[in-house]
Amino acid sequence: MIIVMKKGADKEQLAEVKKQIRELGYKPHVIHGETRNVIGAVGDERGKSVLQAMESLPGVESVVPILKPYKLASREVKPEPSTVDLGGGVTVGGGQLVVMAGPCSVESEAQILETAHAVKAAGATVLRGGAFKPRTSPYSFQGMEEDGLKLLALAREATGLPIVTEVVNPRDVDLVARYADIMQVGARNIQNFALLKMLGQLDKPILLKRGMASTIQEFLMSAEYILAEGNRRVLLCERGIRTFETATRNTLDISAVPVLKEQTHLPIIIDPSHATGHASLVPSMCYAGVAAGCDGLIVEVHPCPEKAASDGPQSLRPAEFAAMMAKLREFAKVAGKEL
Amino acid sequence: MIIVMKKGADKEQLAEVKKQIRELGYKPHVIHGETRNVIGAVGDERGKSVLQAMESLPGVESVVPILKPYKLASREVKPEPSTVDLGGGVTVGGGQLVVMAGPCSVESEAQILETAHAVKAAGATVLRGGAFKPRTSPYSFQGMEEDGLKLLALAREATGLPIVTEVVNPRDVDLVARYADIMQVGARNIQNFALLKMLGQLDKPILLKRGMASTIQEFLMSAEYILAEGNRRVLLCERGIRTFETATRNTLDISAVPVLKEQTHLPIIIDPSHATGHASLVPSMCYAGVAAGCDGLIVEVHPCPEKAASDGPQSLRPAEFAAMMAKLREFAKVAGKEL
Amino acid sequence: MIIVMKKGADKEQLAEVKKQIRELGYKPHVIHGETRNVIGAVGDERGKSVLQAMESLPGVESVVPILKPYKLASREVKPEPSTVDLGGGVTVGGGQLVVMAGPCSVESEAQILETAHAVKAAGATVLRGGAFKPRTSPYSFQGMEEDGLKLLALAREATGLPIVTEVVNPRDVDLVARYADIMQVGARNIQNFALLKMLGQLDKPILLKRGMASTIQEFLMSAEYILAEGNRRVLLCERGIRTFETATRNTLDISAVPVLKEQTHLPIIIDPSHATGHASLVPSMCYAGVAAGCDGLIVEVHPCPEKAASDGPQSLRPAEFAAMMAKLREFAKVAGKEL
Amino acid sequence: MIIVMKKGADKEQLAEVKKQIRELGYKPHVIHGETRNVIGAVGDERGKSVLQAMESLPGVESVVPILKPYKLASREVKPEPSTVDLGGGVTVGGGQLVVMAGPCSVESEAQILETAHAVKAAGATVLRGGAFKPRTSPYSFQGMEEDGLKLLALAREATGLPIVTEVVNPRDVDLVARYADIMQVGARNIQNFALLKMLGQLDKPILLKRGMASTIQEFLMSAEYILAEGNRRVLLCERGIRTFETATRNTLDISAVPVLKEQTHLPIIIDPSHATGHASLVPSMCYAGVAAGCDGLIVEVHPCPEKAASDGPQSLRPAEFAAMMAKLREFAKVAGKEL
Repeated sequence: MIIVMKKGADKEQLAEVKKQIRELGYKPHVIHGETRNVIGAVGDERGKSVLQAMESLPGVESVVPILKPYKLASREVKPEPSTVDLGGGVTVGGGQLVVMAGPCSVESEAQILETAHAVKAAGATVLRGGAFKPRTSPYSFQGMEEDGLKLLALAREATGLPIVTEVVNPRDVDLVARYADIMQVGARNIQNFALLKMLGQLDKPILLKRGMASTIQEFLMSAEYILAEGNRRVLLCERGIRTFETATRNTLDISAVPVLKEQTHLPIIIDPSHATGHASLVPSMCYAGVAAGCDGLIVEVHPCPEKAASDGPQSLRPAEFAAMMAKLREFAKVAGKEL
Repeated sequence: MIIVMKKGADKEQLAEVKKQIRELGYKPHVIHGETRNVIGAVGDERGKSVLQAMESLPGVESVVPILKPYKLASREVKPEPSTVDLGGGVTVGGGQLVVMAGPCSVESEAQILETAHAVKAAGATVLRGGAFKPRTSPYSFQGMEEDGLKLLALAREATGLPIVTEVVNPRDVDLVARYADIMQVGARNIQNFALLKMLGQLDKPILLKRGMASTIQEFLMSAEYILAEGNRRVLLCERGIRTFETATRNTLDISAVPVLKEQTHLPIIIDPSHATGHASLVPSMCYAGVAAGCDGLIVEVHPCPEKAASDGPQSLRPAEFAAMMAKLREFAKVAGKEL
Repeated sequence: MIIVMKKGADKEQLAEVKKQIRELGYKPHVIHGETRNVIGAVGDERGKSVLQAMESLPGVESVVPILKPYKLASREVKPEPSTVDLGGGVTVGGGQLVVMAGPCSVESEAQILETAHAVKAAGATVLRGGAFKPRTSPYSFQGMEEDGLKLLALAREATGLPIVTEVVNPRDVDLVARYADIMQVGARNIQNFALLKMLGQLDKPILLKRGMASTIQEFLMSAEYILAEGNRRVLLCERGIRTFETATRNTLDISAVPVLKEQTHLPIIIDPSHATGHASLVPSMCYAGVAAGCDGLIVEVHPCPEKAASDGPQSLRPAEFAAMMAKLREFAKVAGKEL
Repeated sequence: MIIVMKKGADKEQLAEVKKQIRELGYKPHVIHGETRNVIGAVGDERGKSVLQAMESLPGVESVVPILKPYKLASREVKPEPSTVDLGGGVTVGGGQLVVMAGPCSVESEAQILETAHAVKAAGATVLRGGAFKPRTSPYSFQGMEEDGLKLLALAREATGLPIVTEVVNPRDVDLVARYADIMQVGARNIQNFALLKMLGQLDKPILLKRGMASTIQEFLMSAEYILAEGNRRVLLCERGIRTFETATRNTLDISAVPVLKEQTHLPIIIDPSHATGHASLVPSMCYAGVAAGCDGLIVEVHPCPEKAASDGPQSLRPAEFAAMMAKLREFAKVAGKEL
């Protein structure tokens, strides 16, 4: 932490800041500049927010954090990339490119089975499908809940694909965990810390979606909540951030892939469906994600998008998905990944 | 809902769109334009997301929603402003300007009592204080939990001020409701729909904070979740949105006040502390909020900000708060509010 | 400037960074932290971008600027607020609240004269009107150009109000300066440095509008371009920034007022018309701006907004403007300004 | 254009809106909805801003544009992709992937020649280099101006590479055009319409960079300014947009590539250097851009980034560039482009 003093701050103010730094268990180190003084506070950065509060002291202009606040998620603690076993022989974070595909919502047995078989045939290795749907409107379809989970389990039995599905309410963690191979945390719950802590105590991989307004640092802090509870199987999912652009539903922050690769050892998944909101934009964003170095994709596929209960406009038809997968295989190969 | 056809879409495509509109229970109405056709779908807009899915049909360029998706929150359903009784003789939404003040976190009996007496003496009519703290970092102070609630109750007893405090986890709703007069939903939980639904079944006023990336429409949709469950006592709180500007913690969206006043009957509270992140900016934003027409303010006050466990830099000292209140009284009078 | 070394950076890398700092004319000052080293570079910060380039050196994690890059605009150089004489007995930056009002575009003699008389009668002290219009579409009305300037001069003669009008092209600076009392730089030209430099050599007040995506620091750097050329009469105008919110045209960054008041001595004007884009939102934003401490307002007024050649939806009718001014007078008084 | 009436708007208000629509030369077409009426205005959409002004009429809730405001840039006017001859046998927009590379600023003969030879050897086909530099600070290096242009011409002579360089001031268009093969418009000048109009009258390809806060639609409208003047050789360059994320200098909007490919026939270039601001992130963003379907890249390369006069942190060293190009060749092949 660096404390920048105001130009013209006097000796007493400087002394007071140094005293407070010492009281908080840090060692002050003053750099006397030409126009103002700057004080480094040396020590273990736990209790950081308390140092930040020194901005309230007279003569202090600003307090600048130097260190990254996450630990377990960082490359500094674990330099080599983490690989996570997802079940069904699928591993993410190594040489395998994982493609998770399926409908936004589970709607019926026929729908989920048809989709599961289709995406498996095209090369997907995980089945996605929502049973608990967090919807902006209370009047929108909210998901089939446990019945949806049962249908997902049926589709897993039929295809052998492990399943990923979202859990929304801490109360439902046990229920969803009985069915799911991978537990998904949606973008809206990125700072639902009660949920994150419960998932940190689970023995299941967690697919954590970045919030629409989460900085990369905050995203890693949310992952840290899960890791700190003991669950080290966290997959980070970039799914678009909120910007001023309206041509797409969100803006896919593709550069988050190399930034995260530098900062964390956790595997990185790209969700081009929620990022763009339009099926026609999905294939090129899949290719871009893989070229950028991601470890996997999660893609919405629906047998009849114009009748989908949710997210129809961004869902690929099975034939479109298969065509995309064929081209993706070539890009994956150049990126050094196997599909 | 307006469906815009692509230039060059053929008759069969148009016929298919009309057919689908009818199947979904709407009446299609075609406007033949010079370069393309546009189809209005007339009917009750429930099931809106399904119409949106028609974007997937061949020949369709875009689907443009026309109606606002919220109902109970809207001025159309209830033209006159709602007033909400907060307890202790305090009513918000009418001629009274409500000022909620207190520390970010409850830290000790001495701290909360000192603050409560100070803010009451300066004219605050509600005491704020956090017992469950959703923090970005798992290593930061997470609040005193039930012990904090007990201290808040003690401060209420000592001062007569009703208390507002945040609930984070659906599991804790009953616990917090045993102590709080007003239940706060923080910005991070704006789309924690499980929490919103539980609060909708409660007989307590809810202070709902806008998410950092919530549009005003989404904000009202979150309020709609509470209203739709039967609880009509919702207070909307603008607390800054996330933008590219870094001089402030968030950007206070002051124009949300008149926008909300046009669209909804619910009372509007401004939180200048979280919006700006710096105590020196808080007083002028209080004045601006009142001049813009808000019904209340929620302000962080701490007896010793440089030692605060959370949000020190944005907390006013009691004397600063009292000075602000004196000037605020004058602005409130011009705005037609009593303080 | 603070250079943060990577954890594990070796002695040679540290030595190289120190060597480079010295070569650039700064004095390195190392703070040995628990997990990594941090180096302060002490010296005159001119040539700052060169220090930033040290991020390219092996072992360097990041380079953190400490000092504000503007000088002449800063409170540190000039602590007391600047007052600027606008002509016609109008001074901004002191006790007087300046209200600039008029149509977006000058459209005809009748239109500008009617508006000028109306806004003067309501208490405006400067007349605004666009003759050169930078429009997003090449097919939109681009302004009356010199004919428009002549009509503005006519309106000045008729009312005594000094006039503010936009200059878009460096080529037109002399032409516009022959007519205008105050030269306006629009938001789109905030980093049109050629234009800023020319205006810096002029003996006229400049109304500089913040860009839609300018940080406050960049805004001040653009002012610095004008100041550095010798023209000290710069008025800063906050007119909304671009965010994800679509209910308003832009988001009025009201907290920019106190932030700027802390950082600069230059007067601050609020433009609620471009910020909101809707006439019904303008009055409350005028009140908020004044309560926040601004020195003036610039407001669009048109005798017949539904027929305006540009920006009709955000223009007040003369009667609406007069009603707003009556209430504004009361808020101004509380804010310690005379209107 | 769709005019949405307020719920409860009366017959007279509806009649007035219809009358105004007819007066403006459009044909009104009313759809009577269940809760409100909606009016389509059929006709040539020129004069669009005037229709927008109808929002000011009593009883009107909102005015919703349906048609895209650009014409010449659109796929509807020209369905097949445009190819642009850049000189030196280089064509963009067809099967060739164009890589433009070189330093941010031209600094010396040795620097530009060394870089030009290096990037050519690695496979670049256009040399970039700035002679007029728009810098945020007036105290930063502003470019070598005409001397820089002369050095670029020298480098072209030495290597045969056509050169792209930025023009900032309309006054300098002729000067820059005497040296440059491709004229660059920087992000800060995206709405410098005086400059765009002059470039529209030039017989040279224009590389138009998207503004930091430009929507894709506004970006195309700026291109339309050039096209409407007669110059059809416009290259669109996505270089990152401004968002809340601070880990990167800007956020590369990679989905702009497929969106633009759907909407316009103009070639699309990606600038990963300005988008990310960090050299280590550039290669993966080059790969992502090509996988997403862009027609070219523009990349900053400097022989000694830590001593660069501008943008050092985002410049690749020649060896890093060569390594990137080797891998890029493989991705380009999969994307169906030749490098």
